[in-house]
Amino acid sequence: MTTRPAIPKGTRDLSPQEMARRDYIFNTIREVFRLYGFQAIETPAMENLSTLLGKYGEEGDKLLFKILNSGDFLSGLSEEERQESNAARLATRLCEKGLRYDLTVPFARFVVMHRNELTLPFKRYQIQPVWRADRPQKGRYREFYQCDADVIGSDSLLNEVELLHLIDEVFARLNIPVAVHLNNRKILAGIAEIIGCPDALTDITVAIDKLDKVGLDNVNGELREKGLSNEAVSRLQPILLLQGENEEKLNRLRQILAVSETGLKGIAELDYILGKLSVLPLRANLVIDLTLARGLNYYTGAIVEVKALGVEMGSITGGGRYDNLTGVFGMPGISGVGISFGADRIYDVLNQLDRYPADTLASTQLLFVNFGEKESEAALRLVAALRTAGIRTELYPEAAKLKKQLGYADSKHIPFVALVGEDEMASGQVTLKNMATGEQTRLPLPDLITRLKG
Amino acid sequence: MTTRPAIPKGTRDLSPQEMARRDYIFNTIREVFRLYGFQAIETPAMENLSTLLGKYGEEGDKLLFKILNSGDFLSGLSEEERQESNAARLATRLCEKGLRYDLTVPFARFVVMHRNELTLPFKRYQIQPVWRADRPQKGRYREFYQCDADVIGSDSLLNEVELLHLIDEVFARLNIPVAVHLNNRKILAGIAEIIGCPDALTDITVAIDKLDKVGLDNVNGELREKGLSNEAVSRLQPILLLQGENEEKLNRLRQILAVSETGLKGIAELDYILGKLSVLPLRANLVIDLTLARGLNYYTGAIVEVKALGVEMGSITGGGRYDNLTGVFGMPGISGVGISFGADRIYDVLNQLDRYPADTLASTQLLFVNFGEKESEAALRLVAALRTAGIRTELYPEAAKLKKQLGYADSKHIPFVALVGEDEMASGQVTLKNMATGEQTRLPLPDLITRLKG
Repeated sequence: MTTRPAIPKGTRDLSPQEMARRDYIFNTIREVFRLYGFQAIETPAMENLSTLLGKYGEEGDKLLFKILNSGDFLSGLSEEERQESNAARLATRLCEKGLRYDLTVPFARFVVMHRNELTLPFKRYQIQPVWRADRPQKGRYREFYQCDADVIGSDSLLNEVELLHLIDEVFARLNIPVAVHLNNRKILAGIAEIIGCPDALTDITVAIDKLDKVGLDNVNGELREKGLSNEAVSRLQPILLLQGENEEKLNRLRQILAVSETGLKGIAELDYILGKLSVLPLRANLVIDLTLARGLNYYTGAIVEVKALGVEMGSITGGGRYDNLTGVFGMPGISGVGISFGADRIYDVLNQLDRYPADTLASTQLLFVNFGEKESEAALRLVAALRTAGIRTELYPEAAKLKKQLGYADSKHIPFVALVGEDEMASGQVTLKNMATGEQTRLPLPDLITRLKG
Repeated sequence: MTTRPAIPKGTRDLSPQEMARRDYIFNTIREVFRLYGFQAIETPAMENLSTLLGKYGEEGDKLLFKILNSGDFLSGLSEEERQESNAARLATRLCEKGLRYDLTVPFARFVVMHRNELTLPFKRYQIQPVWRADRPQKGRYREFYQCDADVIGSDSLLNEVELLHLIDEVFARLNIPVAVHLNNRKILAGIAEIIGCPDALTDITVAIDKLDKVGLDNVNGELREKGLSNEAVSRLQPILLLQGENEEKLNRLRQILAVSETGLKGIAELDYILGKLSVLPLRANLVIDLTLARGLNYYTGAIVEVKALGVEMGSITGGGRYDNLTGVFGMPGISGVGISFGADRIYDVLNQLDRYPADTLASTQLLFVNFGEKESEAALRLVAALRTAGIRTELYPEAAKLKKQLGYADSKHIPFVALVGEDEMASGQVTLKNMATGEQTRLPLPDLITRLKG
């Protein structure tokens, strides 16, 4: 029986070239994470559903991939349970585990489980795939990677400053021009207060989060649908449309939010961060953006999003300050701040901009042509010497036609080919062919190594 | 509601120290893979169950983690199907996808799906986790990593030679003394022939594969149980007990298997490989081991296993030649040879031998103590300069007590701490404290960089 091979929708194979590009992004992010003192952890792909359920809202619960209990998964069920016709309820009977949906909830679970081993502040990074049963579409996958860095156990706003510098460094290294949008949840809370709707903070943030995508009229419509009065909506307008330099915006806000203690605290936090960044400025443009809300409810302070300039694409990095990451797991009072790089979107941006370094593929550097038994034995010795010198080297495994062997080098983007026939064996030299120019040089091993290392 | 946090049995969190050790192993293996011209691919964690089922035997099918169909997974089922009381059959109705069980079957599926994009021979490596619903026990996990390298599309035995050198290089770099055990499935087939049981090859290999673990008597018992005659079993004994140098063993075998064409072919293959290895010897001890069988049925030529010397542990690497990897997916005639490093066992061996390089953790190199607002601003500038120089540097985020900050450095194994107070700010210098010796030196930034880079 043969099976027609396919992969589940929304998932991908990565070819060597795609892997090289993706690893270039991961390695860049990882190196900067480490430069800033973050340490790696990993958590299992599978978490108990009790850890995951209820953490991502109703919609999130539906998008969890659940894993069927192994063995005879029916044996523990009562007849009544077996007859359960509600799929979601039956699922919790059939499944105890699910695939992780993000890296934040597993991290919170990690912190609580390992609290006695951790010294706070704890700076961790984590680069792992997550899974969501979303409807697949262009640029949205059911398996994708997240690259998160968080500092927990420190309230200091210096952490926010450090993370902004870290973001700046990553995109400078990736050669992607970006704008960094900054806001503060306390300012949004203050705004909700002064327009007379302190309880509608979530509705307001969810609505204005879409301003970029759907425009002002639709945002206002949604706000009215959510029950905001016309007066509240009209009071919101000048704030949404606030223009000018960051300092001007903050000064204007300071007047608008003068009666909101929370709002003023948010402004003071932003002000502190801007002060530190005036000492050590970002290379990227920093924009105070009052329409930036970030949908997630757990943010309580600074929030940040990064947009690539000159490319049509949503935010490629985001994050913020939260006050109670681990409370749901019985460990209250742990504050933290974190960011998450969207590796897949960064990949798409780099593909559009074509900004990969020339040597990203970094495949084999030198291929020895195979001319037969005796020649290949001589070649094997040379191959070993080159590898000892750190040069990625192959010997073609068969004495195939030269054309086929050169075609192999071409398809693998191998820049140099070595020819060792009887002449070369007699003289102890190697003929080196440059695959780009076709130029051939005969030279001894030490010179060959020098040439390829240069 | 709070959830008591736990993780599924058989899975693990990796702490920063465990990650550093594991990545040391992965990076070593990856670097050697690349040095030998292998290129990375990745495949999705989820495969269609139609891809996975039937590829690992009946036992393997049971050990697959199956993923519940998303959405209303009951809607497509007939009443009869819903009443199915056989768990395995019901599972195939409820689940279309499963987690990958190894990297070999997904690779075969990959090759068939991408055959038009691949140039043969194709040398790929893959380092990804796999999942098995095995009973968890010491050293056996339900989620673990495999590190595979395969060459497909080439019959040349030079590939076997290359992979043996690759194995040798990896364990030399990891500083683990090993013995490399080599055999050939054709020799085992020849043995089955000459003892008069050509059809019992699988039973014979399965039984003698356990010789190390259960001893000769038990192996003979199992062979008799499987229906081998006393005569056949007694004919097998001198072969199982064959002693001496590799060449002696091969010479003796050549006599024993003189009438078996297949057996002689296996000997010739081994002989060829030994010949090449005499040109370029391994550092590890190479042992022709006729009791090495490897349980997997798809091997058809050379088979190899690596054992760590001086440590009680099963094989830490294994592999072999197969003739028909992709046939089951409708693409016959693709031969290949591959090896798989057992990262978890290698990790355990290194822990036992305590052979990690001193700088494996490679955490932050320098921590700036935070003495307050003004001092921390000066420190931030220095931190930026040090990071630009590639030195992993942190500023403690809060002006906490010095003891607490030094405790943080200690717990994170940070070797140096920088103190920048008023004196240092005035003189443009930094006081550097060596955490191991307690020694303090005052020096300007350029000297600090030189010191830490040295």
